[in-house]
Amino acid sequence: MKSEIIAVGSEMLTPFRQDTNSLYLTEKLNGIGVTVAFKSVVGDRRKDLVSAIKTALARTDILILMGGLGPTEDDLTREAAAEALSLTLRRDATQVAALHARAATWRITMPPNNLKQADVIEGAALLHNPNGSAPGQWLDVTFSGYRKLVMLLPGPPHECAPLFDAECLPRLKALVPPRAIAVRTLKAAMIPESQADKLLAPIYSMYTDIETTLLAHTGDLQITLICSKPTLLIAQQRVDELAEKIEVALEDWFYSSQGDTLEQIVHYYLGLRQATLAVAESCTGGLIAERITSVPGASRSFLGGVVVYSDELKTAFAGVPADLIAKHGAVSAEVAKALAEGIRARTGATIGLGVTGIAGPTGATESKPVGLVHIAVSDAQGTSNTDRTFRGDRQRIREWAAQFALDLVRRRLI
Amino acid sequence: MKSEIIAVGSEMLTPFRQDTNSLYLTEKLNGIGVTVAFKSVVGDRRKDLVSAIKTALARTDILILMGGLGPTEDDLTREAAAEALSLTLRRDATQVAALHARAATWRITMPPNNLKQADVIEGAALLHNPNGSAPGQWLDVTFSGYRKLVMLLPGPPHECAPLFDAECLPRLKALVPPRAIAVRTLKAAMIPESQADKLLAPIYSMYTDIETTLLAHTGDLQITLICSKPTLLIAQQRVDELAEKIEVALEDWFYSSQGDTLEQIVHYYLGLRQATLAVAESCTGGLIAERITSVPGASRSFLGGVVVYSDELKTAFAGVPADLIAKHGAVSAEVAKALAEGIRARTGATIGLGVTGIAGPTGATESKPVGLVHIAVSDAQGTSNTDRTFRGDRQRIREWAAQFALDLVRRRLI
Repeated sequence: MKSEIIAVGSEMLTPFRQDTNSLYLTEKLNGIGVTVAFKSVVGDRRKDLVSAIKTALARTDILILMGGLGPTEDDLTREAAAEALSLTLRRDATQVAALHARAATWRITMPPNNLKQADVIEGAALLHNPNGSAPGQWLDVTFSGYRKLVMLLPGPPHECAPLFDAECLPRLKALVPPRAIAVRTLKAAMIPESQADKLLAPIYSMYTDIETTLLAHTGDLQITLICSKPTLLIAQQRVDELAEKIEVALEDWFYSSQGDTLEQIVHYYLGLRQATLAVAESCTGGLIAERITSVPGASRSFLGGVVVYSDELKTAFAGVPADLIAKHGAVSAEVAKALAEGIRARTGATIGLGVTGIAGPTGATESKPVGLVHIAVSDAQGTSNTDRTFRGDRQRIREWAAQFALDLVRRRLI
Repeated sequence: MKSEIIAVGSEMLTPFRQDTNSLYLTEKLNGIGVTVAFKSVVGDRRKDLVSAIKTALARTDILILMGGLGPTEDDLTREAAAEALSLTLRRDATQVAALHARAATWRITMPPNNLKQADVIEGAALLHNPNGSAPGQWLDVTFSGYRKLVMLLPGPPHECAPLFDAECLPRLKALVPPRAIAVRTLKAAMIPESQADKLLAPIYSMYTDIETTLLAHTGDLQITLICSKPTLLIAQQRVDELAEKIEVALEDWFYSSQGDTLEQIVHYYLGLRQATLAVAESCTGGLIAERITSVPGASRSFLGGVVVYSDELKTAFAGVPADLIAKHGAVSAEVAKALAEGIRARTGATIGLGVTGIAGPTGATESKPVGLVHIAVSDAQGTSNTDRTFRGDRQRIREWAAQFALDLVRRRLI
């Protein structure tokens, strides 16, 4: 079954606020086999809201409205939903009493407009909201000849999520055909997106019962497989079968079948080999160390690193000979090699990583463009040197360089 | 004028991904007097996309589509927009040549499906995308008798934002009726959110013609003031008047009246004092160095740093006496002080910063809880020591610690 989530509130149409409830609801809906086909944000304007609700009802089976249930003039979700469904609103006496009781508990005089929150759409079941004054509403109605489920939920996350779990999920489970959904997230590093699609499209397009999503970001490719079947076992088997084929096709670009991050995988292999790592970074400025230490328990395999921005520190902390820098320049294969070997020697790590490059926007020369990065990985077997020229702004070049460097360490370990 | 932003991509209908581009675009649109009336997320299904585009065109003047311009089978925005507008698609020869040239630069063979990216909607102007292979498209068309502006933008944020700024904003400014909007962003560090609101609400609530938004994130407070008036001079004067009062009220928590980042301000003061900085990080694992070096030209004031995760490296790189660690433990005021003084001595920096703490989830002892962080700042006048216990997960604790440490450096410099 298909659903749509509409977040109601003009504040979510500013640059400062974003709907986050929908991520939580999506996870819960997917878990019972309901997909989210559309998400929308609509401001506190009745006309806009009515039209958005009608559009949603025309294209999905389940409509979840969040927000606009409060006591102010701007809270219009009840009115708009009733209008869109051609149903009337009635003021519920029990609800009015509850609002008065709540005001008494808080020892405040209830403003008259608060009573709006006791308005109930004809035929709606009220959904108890333990964390706020506005109850939710549940409607099981016919719209243009089709059965539709409509939920009105409060907007604040600490009201919306518990109310949905306690009141909506059980009702939905009872009505939605039982489905089991298997999800699997695969990861690969440094494969160009178009190349990944060329390799994988012929494979995943054979599995029309699995929704495959490719997402690439700065050299990190995430492949999500989602499959819905009558039983979890069948769904899981299908997903596993496709996952295995993708893993084989991606060869050594592939690094995780469980959605791990690249830094987690590097730690995994370091642990497996009982190896330790130390890094000497220039242009990445600590980004590699930051990623490596973001993993809990990082201290088991990561000894530490140096961020050697000045030439003097390259010599002082990583033992790069000053005349080597003078001869080849700080951004050179020779200095990357010396950084990797130097940090390895000074820390006693199994593997030393050295990175030097030009992150920009300044610092380029005729032979050394912005984006040029030299990376060296050193261990007992020797030192390997690689260079790449990345595009983008300072931040992007640093992110690409860090991703590439971590991947080179992973490749050295496998 | 009213606009709608549609983010295209099935991944944004999962629990894992969210559209963030729209926040950036909203800020820019608001700045030229265009409001965002609706935001939507639609998956990679052509039928859904066509219907969403038609709905949007029926209710707004300006439609911005983001995503779905890539080379894969799932990238359907061009096709769907053409269908919704009843326009044809043609393959642009210049664009085909550009794609081939791009592939040649990257030294890869271009997969045939890449050529999709050269498809242009009849009458569209191509928008140059310096950061990706798919160009944007700009349409000035008639739909159901009304003039509509339609933009097709790439989805990745680093492509979307610069393309919008360079290509769409100037075109929109030329077409949208001029309005004068003054915007000012103020920044403060480490002030508790509730304290900020208590201090500032009595001030900003007097300026009912200014929209004031407070946004707090890990010790960083951003206050945005927006004022629309018949002339820019009047709007700017109002905003400046309120900004000055806020600046005074926030005392030394306040650090920027122009929306700068904390690391930019640290660099600003380092430059002003002709001072240099070096850092020795343990629990922040490179996060402080990473933030400092994210600022272009960082090498002028930042010499470098060490990430000393193991006790041995604290001694080897920052000269922390081994018996000091043995006596007080690696997470202690004494070791933070030794780190700050040691890194300052070894690098010759004007200021040395030392950070050690327990980021968790493991590593706590009875007297040293997860979240405990010791920070020391050292210069020619001496060394100051501070500790705090932050709450949250590993990532949050590291972010708080880095923010606090940078703020202490700022306070030492002012």
